[in-house]
Amino acid sequence: MINKLVKKIQETGAPIVVGLDPKLDFIPKSVQKEAFDEYGVTLEGAAEAIFRFNKAIVDATYDLIPAVKPQIAMYEQYGIPGLIAYEKTVSYCQEKDLVVIGDIKRGDIGSTSLSYAAAHLGSVKVGDKTFAPFHEDFCTVNPYLGSDGVNPFIDVCKKEKKGIFVLVKTSNPSSGEFQDRLIDGRPLYEWVGEKVNEWGADVMG
Amino acid sequence: MINKLVKKIQETGAPIVVGLDPKLDFIPKSVQKEAFDEYGVTLEGAAEAIFRFNKAIVDATYDLIPAVKPQIAMYEQYGIPGLIAYEKTVSYCQEKDLVVIGDIKRGDIGSTSLSYAAAHLGSVKVGDKTFAPFHEDFCTVNPYLGSDGVNPFIDVCKKEKKGIFVLVKTSNPSSGEFQDRLIDGRPLYEWVGEKVNEWGADVMG
Repeated sequence: MINKLVKKIQETGAPIVVGLDPKLDFIPKSVQKEAFDEYGVTLEGAAEAIFRFNKAIVDATYDLIPAVKPQIAMYEQYGIPGLIAYEKTVSYCQEKDLVVIGDIKRGDIGSTSLSYAAAHLGSVKVGDKTFAPFHEDFCTVNPYLGSDGVNPFIDVCKKEKKGIFVLVKTSNPSSGEFQDRLIDGRPLYEWVGEKVNEWGADVMG
Repeated sequence: MINKLVKKIQETGAPIVVGLDPKLDFIPKSVQKEAFDEYGVTLEGAAEAIFRFNKAIVDATYDLIPAVKPQIAMYEQYGIPGLIAYEKTVSYCQEKDLVVIGDIKRGDIGSTSLSYAAAHLGSVKVGDKTFAPFHEDFCTVNPYLGSDGVNPFIDVCKKEKKGIFVLVKTSNPSSGEFQDRLIDGRPLYEWVGEKVNEWGADVMG
């Protein structure tokens, strides 16, 4: 999947992603009104406004950019309807051949990370059938729990030809509180970066 | 909320939580069959089986225990229907007056953590209405991003009288890879623990 992303960056000449992190207040009132008229002033109405706004952004940009990065929290805050809008956004972007990086920052112990990996990059079995619930191309992963928390994602990446981005050094003001602290003379984020290198060694593009 | 949890622990004499981390393979075939007959061999069918199994566990234990801890990943892997089962499980447990600890391990930069906090412990506004999407009583939070990532949860806790558990030292085999590394002679998890103490200073029970 990283090869596809690199190829699309070269083709578009645009080493950028478009973030799809909807805030209802920033969505034009006209879009909100249409959605509310149809679905009520409800979570469903909010989710529909978000999806329509995303669709307009994607329609205007899909041939100029390689990838999008929807931030799932912005959808999760609108509950189930919000998460339906998230999945519809992923699907719509993939129809437009955009690479979708699900910014989910999940991470847990082994069996639980495996469930997140199945939910977002892989698939689950129900009886004799298989479903791929959120089917992003990449997702972001939090490394605080160490290899146990990350390896299940890597296993799914290998199987499904998907990818992950692991948090190493984040851009927020307080990221240094733990990430910059020195361990044997080097900041934590360097140790995490080294591990990422190890984890990714046999899944390079 | 921590006072309610402590009171319920004292009343039941049971300092335990019941984990509701459903694995479809462990749910009795009879429960699966009933759900599949009604909803098909689908994500909906899997989610229904999970909810019915949870309901049976809760009905059998609610007067003996103080709290439950559903692990959202186990539901998230069944996509939207799974997350509907998660929310129904939270609601059902709260009807039985159980304290619900949503094991979600979310954590991100400020505005994004705020959205997760709204989704799980707080509420969102849509027009002039307010909705509380997942409405757990507590949730678990990942501290890797520092204060920015945790404070939005604390703000919502103060407003809504909810609570969080922050990951300090986790129980998985590889937790030590980062958490045990020494910073100025003390393991990272001690520094995180100290921060948790600070973060929680004015929201003690």
